[in-house]
Order: sequence, then C-alpha cells, then structure tokens
Amino acid sequence: MELQSGERLDDLLTHQLKIIQSAEVFSFSLDAVLLARFAGIPPRGRILDLCTGNGVIPLLLTTRTKATIDGVEIQPRLVDMAERSVKLNGLEERVYIIEGDLRVWKSEEDHFYDAVTVNPPYLPVTSGEHKENIHQAMARHELGCNLEQVIAASASHVRHGGRVSMVHRPSRLVDIITIMRKHRLEPKRIRFVHPRRDAEANMVLIEATLGGKPELRTLPPLLVYEDDGEYTPELLDVFYGKVAQLPDFKRTNGRKPVVAAPREGTRIHDDE
Amino acid sequence: MELQSGERLDDLLTHQLKIIQSAEVFSFSLDAVLLARFAGIPPRGRILDLCTGNGVIPLLLTTRTKATIDGVEIQPRLVDMAERSVKLNGLEERVYIIEGDLRVWKSEEDHFYDAVTVNPPYLPVTSGEHKENIHQAMARHELGCNLEQVIAASASHVRHGGRVSMVHRPSRLVDIITIMRKHRLEPKRIRFVHPRRDAEANMVLIEATLGGKPELRTLPPLLVYEDDGEYTPELLDVFYGKVAQLPDFKRTNGRKPVVAAPREGTRIHDDE
Repeated sequence: MELQSGERLDDLLTHQLKIIQSAEVFSFSLDAVLLARFAGIPPRGRILDLCTGNGVIPLLLTTRTKATIDGVEIQPRLVDMAERSVKLNGLEERVYIIEGDLRVWKSEEDHFYDAVTVNPPYLPVTSGEHKENIHQAMARHELGCNLEQVIAASASHVRHGGRVSMVHRPSRLVDIITIMRKHRLEPKRIRFVHPRRDAEANMVLIEATLGGKPELRTLPPLLVYEDDGEYTPELLDVFYGKVAQLPDFKRTNGRKPVVAAPREGTRIHDDE
Repeated sequence: MELQSGERLDDLLTHQLKIIQSAEVFSFSLDAVLLARFAGIPPRGRILDLCTGNGVIPLLLTTRTKATIDGVEIQPRLVDMAERSVKLNGLEERVYIIEGDLRVWKSEEDHFYDAVTVNPPYLPVTSGEHKENIHQAMARHELGCNLEQVIAASASHVRHGGRVSMVHRPSRLVDIITIMRKHRLEPKRIRFVHPRRDAEANMVLIEATLGGKPELRTLPPLLVYEDDGEYTPELLDVFYGKVAQLPDFKRTNGRKPVVAAPREGTRIHDDE
C-alpha cells in the first residue's frame, strides 16, 4: 500500500482496522466515531454513508453489521484515500466508495437503502473557508451541500421505515428537526454530547425513521470528561471500540432488512 | 385564611412563600419548580403564566422579578385556590389570577406581555383520564387545550423579542419545536432533565423568542439523582430555593472539545 505525500496510516483502535489520513486533506474527528456507534443499522442489507470523507464511518460500521456499505464522497482526492483504506483492510466486498455529488447522485432506485448515515459539513458558507485548503473547506463548510440538501438526499435514499442517523451541532437542531419532518423523517432518538457535566452540548446525534410515528427518545447525555479532567468510562469505551454500539441502543421496529442485491451496478472506482 | 375540605397549606421552601394544595384537586410537581427557575423573565414589566393551576409558577416568579404576573386558569376551583394563595402571601398587587380559557382568552391587546411561561397538560386525550377526577384530568390531559393551542396562545400574547418558556415531555419535542417555529417562536435555550446520569430524559425545559434568530443553546443536563441515589446538589439548590434562577452556563460557542489522541498513532482532530 503506497501512501501519498503527507498521508499517514492511523489505527482505528478496533478490529485491527487501519485508515489513511492526512493533516492537509482530511482526518476524521470524534463526531464520526460517535455517529458510527450511535447509528441504528441493520445486521445485514444495504447501508449508505453520505459525505463519507476518507471512509471512516463505513470502515467502523463493518464491525457492527454484515451489510454492504456504500460511501458517497464528492471530492476525488478523498474517494481515492477511502478506496485505498478499504483495500488495506480487505473490505472490498463489503464497502464501496462512490464519487458523487449528493445533490444529484442517484443509486439504482429511490429508497434503495435500509439505513443512511451522514456526518455533513457543519458550518455555513462564510468568509472563514478561504483560510483553509479546498479539501478542509469542503468537509467543514456547506460549500458542496447544505443541510436541507443533505436531509432531502437521505430521505430519498432510505427505505420506508429505515433510519437516517446524523451528527451535527446542537445550535442547528431546530433546523435539523423541522427539515427532517418536512421530508417525512421523524426524529426518534437523540443524544447530546457535553464536554463536561456542567457544560453546554457541542454535538448532537440524531436518528430519524422515514415515515415514523412521532415519539422522541432523549438518551442519557454523553459526557466526554469527568470533573477531574479524565475521559469518562463511556467515552473511552467508545474510543477504543470496546462497545461497537452505544449500549442504550434498542430496536424500535421489527422490520426485517431487505436482503442485499448484487453490487456491481453501483461500483464506480473498480481497480483492476 | 380558610382552607376548604381536603386542602392543606404547603411551604414553597423559599422566601417564606406558602401555597394551598389539595391531593384531590391539584398539587404542583417538580416540573413547575424547574420551569419557574429556568424561564427567561424580565426584572420588571408584565409576565403571563398560562395553565397556572394553583398559581405555583407566579408565586415562585415573584422571587425573581418585580414584574406583575397574570396567571390564567380554566378551572374555577383552581382559580379560587390560587387567588387565596396570592392573598395569603400578600402578593395581590403583583400577581393576578384570571379565570379564562386560553383558546379564546384575550388580554388588553395582542403581544401585551414581556414573557410567557406555561406548564401545560402533557398527555393526549385517551381513555386514561376517566380514572381521574375532572380537576386532575384537565391538568394532565389535553382536554381543555392541546399543544398547538398552547403555543399559538403564547405566541399571540408575548411581545416581539419576548420569551416563551415551557416544560413538557421530551417525547413531544419534535412537535414542540415544529409548532413553535410555525408560530414564529424560535427555540433558543433547551435543557433536559434526566433522573440519573445514565437515564433517558423525562422532562424538557425549552425557551423560545418571538421572531428570534435560529441558534439553539443546549444547556448542561439537569440530573436529579446521583449514582448513589441522593439528590444532586444542583437539584437540591433548585428545590429549596437556594438558586432563584438556574445559573447560566459557560457558552461553548459551538466549539468541540479538543480531544487528545488516546493512543500514539491515531489523531482525532478538532476540525474547527
């Protein structure tokens, strides 16, 4: 496996997974790890990860499911990194990285996936992104897609009764909830991440069901640090992959996932 | 002061306030106390409390403001209890209890109040309310008003830029947020109450501003019990009136915590 200039190989700290990262191009953050643990996903079937970046969420999801996972990313440089990470881990038969713009990208048919995950850019388009290179700017700012486009795409790809899981900033929660409901995605589980017990939340994990019945569960707060400055046991467990899935996850509907279909049609970067 | 059959005189545990309660008719609960501490209210001016019950929220608010406070209640029996409690505390010049149905009640003019508080009935109209007497049924079930009517009334009474504060069940949060925004009430502060650190929230406190700019702050979780089963210090302070108002918290400005690498070789970066 050849690393390109500026790239490094990091350990995902679970199941011997490795990932290619780059300080200049893309490195995953805590948000992605938490989303990969939080998301409601089926044991098999088809999962879509939008804004997949260097593929960190599909890689982590393979530890929780036998489903095939398609990751869609708009930046060719990141698609290339993600594909090499998939190969490095021998996951070519389960994870497919697709170069695509979620505003227009279509899979084989609408509502094709049993679950969708997305860690979208958080920040509105402002002057700030000019200080960054294009890779970082696109991952952080709503340059390639805004919140409504992310939610609309998620709703169009997930099957009826399937789940869409997102991580975002709590400051945007009212937008997230109102736009989700507009697209028939009913928020069912929410979890706030607080740096400390006495601090405001700085991340929110939210899971919605397409066509779900209104009734939201607010999970226990996920605290990052104890009062003494040490990581909380729960955060460490998540970090080190001791819990593949956050422990309070409970299936809320008994629908069986659709059995996976052959994947050839959606493969784009097929290295010979 | 004459107590009627079944009534008792309770101590509000702050500022020597007393309140008339009745097991058969109405007794306030923790929700009302928390709302009275959480609500954003002006130091003077006019405040409206909808669904005022036995007047617990107006009575508690007098410890935080010199504003006049109007409490509206649909049940004559509760209006009578509340009025006698107001007199008992010598607050006739600051607190006014009004018998009225919030679905039709009008004050002198629209948008007359600087702030509105409301602890509405939480439960939908189902078969359950038949087991209760009419007073309890109306306080708990949406018999006299539903969520949208409560929010619409609040929006019609608060001035532009004024705040509406509500306590409710988190299971209804998606309805609360979408209906608030529909009525131009923008949620600005939210706080979840969890019985324990590892338990789902069972109450939510939410404050919205009429015509406010979208940006929500999620305050630290309010935990009721410590792991050892004792009340948390914060809850005790609130309950016993040591803090008239829940302290404001360190703003995190949407920034994520800087999370140090948990192990050599993997960097989980802070992407802002």
